[in-house]
Amino acid sequence: MIIVKIGGGQSINCAGIIKDLAELRQPLIIVHGANALRDQLAQQLNQPLQTITSVSNYASVYSDKALIDLMMMAYAGLKNKRLVELCQQAGLNAIGLSGLDGRVIQGRRNRGIRTRQNGKLKLVRDFSGKPQNVNQNLLQLLLNNGYTPVLTVPIIDETSCAINSENDEIVTLLQTTIKADLVLQFIEAPGFLENPDDETSLIKSMDQAELLKREAQARGRFKRKLLAIRKMLENGAVRVIIADGRVEHPVKEALNGKGTIIQ
Amino acid sequence: MIIVKIGGGQSINCAGIIKDLAELRQPLIIVHGANALRDQLAQQLNQPLQTITSVSNYASVYSDKALIDLMMMAYAGLKNKRLVELCQQAGLNAIGLSGLDGRVIQGRRNRGIRTRQNGKLKLVRDFSGKPQNVNQNLLQLLLNNGYTPVLTVPIIDETSCAINSENDEIVTLLQTTIKADLVLQFIEAPGFLENPDDETSLIKSMDQAELLKREAQARGRFKRKLLAIRKMLENGAVRVIIADGRVEHPVKEALNGKGTIIQ
Repeated sequence: MIIVKIGGGQSINCAGIIKDLAELRQPLIIVHGANALRDQLAQQLNQPLQTITSVSNYASVYSDKALIDLMMMAYAGLKNKRLVELCQQAGLNAIGLSGLDGRVIQGRRNRGIRTRQNGKLKLVRDFSGKPQNVNQNLLQLLLNNGYTPVLTVPIIDETSCAINSENDEIVTLLQTTIKADLVLQFIEAPGFLENPDDETSLIKSMDQAELLKREAQARGRFKRKLLAIRKMLENGAVRVIIADGRVEHPVKEALNGKGTIIQ
Repeated sequence: MIIVKIGGGQSINCAGIIKDLAELRQPLIIVHGANALRDQLAQQLNQPLQTITSVSNYASVYSDKALIDLMMMAYAGLKNKRLVELCQQAGLNAIGLSGLDGRVIQGRRNRGIRTRQNGKLKLVRDFSGKPQNVNQNLLQLLLNNGYTPVLTVPIIDETSCAINSENDEIVTLLQTTIKADLVLQFIEAPGFLENPDDETSLIKSMDQAELLKREAQARGRFKRKLLAIRKMLENGAVRVIIADGRVEHPVKEALNGKGTIIQ
């Protein structure tokens, strides 16, 4: 079993990834983003994204009802269905699901984000939260019958509302439940970079000790990514590969050792 | 088994329909439109819908790639996921699917629409077609495991491309395959009207003989609707009810005899 995360960047070669995956002839679960498409649609609809920054300095997209609508269009609508179409053309019988469908990704809505506004503390509550549970029966039912689940946000909260969530956390939760041997993540870079501005500074491999060391040194989004990967390894993944999604054969290159391999 | 079609008009009370359906505690397949949302989004994106009129005077939306993108956003994205959310809140474990997902609605792409342009005949080919086959195994798999399929366009063609299709034809095809006892259709009117401009001119019931007579007299879209209903009755439906989707309890009122009953 392989869990594949396809990043939502504009230059990701989705068709290449899907064609490569189809040739593997292995059970797959795909999770995808669509942030480039979301941003483009937000601009076209003149509905600029707002950011909230917590007192602990963590920035996130403010997920009001209009943003969830936008995500349903960009992630669960256009991006998901075009990916399913690519899968079908490559011979993978894909079924695209948001976390709401069959309650496949269940989460808990954030109780509020502590922010500072004009010097005063304020609790801001939006439609966002953390994934907590996977409908494993549904995923197994689909996999056992030859279907490839293609998952994306939004997910469903404890009151059955649609909420936004981090894709990385969804992938980690899936691994905790599904126990895949391999987790493949495709991004718009050759892998993890020593220096984010230098594509030649690829970190070719990390073992668990180095992962811990780097996690301790890292900050912000990168720290959370490393934490998510550590959790995946602790939950039975033999290998996690972070690889370039922009090349002609993203999966083949990843499996041939081109990205960052963590094992 | 009940097949429910929810029209895509702006004033359809989707929440009311879903709440009523959940109380029936019967296996359901839901098919929905989203034309009001599609039109609104087309306007917001400054991407006006184009119409092609065939030489036989049949008008349809010109379905280029941009229109299919729009449909993925409006039908399979926003409308489908908000309906699934309403289902989940009402206790129906819904799974929203476009026809692409699991190849659940398979069609054949139109070979071209004969049009006249500046006096000359021209064959215009777009991404539209007719539904021809249902993945019944998938629908049964979901139904047998307690899930409610919520279906919408686009569907998948013979080359695994996304194509546009008529919802009415999808409902008829579903009935041919699934053989539901009852087909419920919710529209923005009290039912079939003798005079489309007079809501008090409701045709309360039709038997098969009257259906045939009216079909022979009707024209255009209405004729196709009557033909679709006749096919459903020929394929085992005991009752087809066309009812008002705008009221507080659309399903209860329909089952209490408020719409047009055809049996």
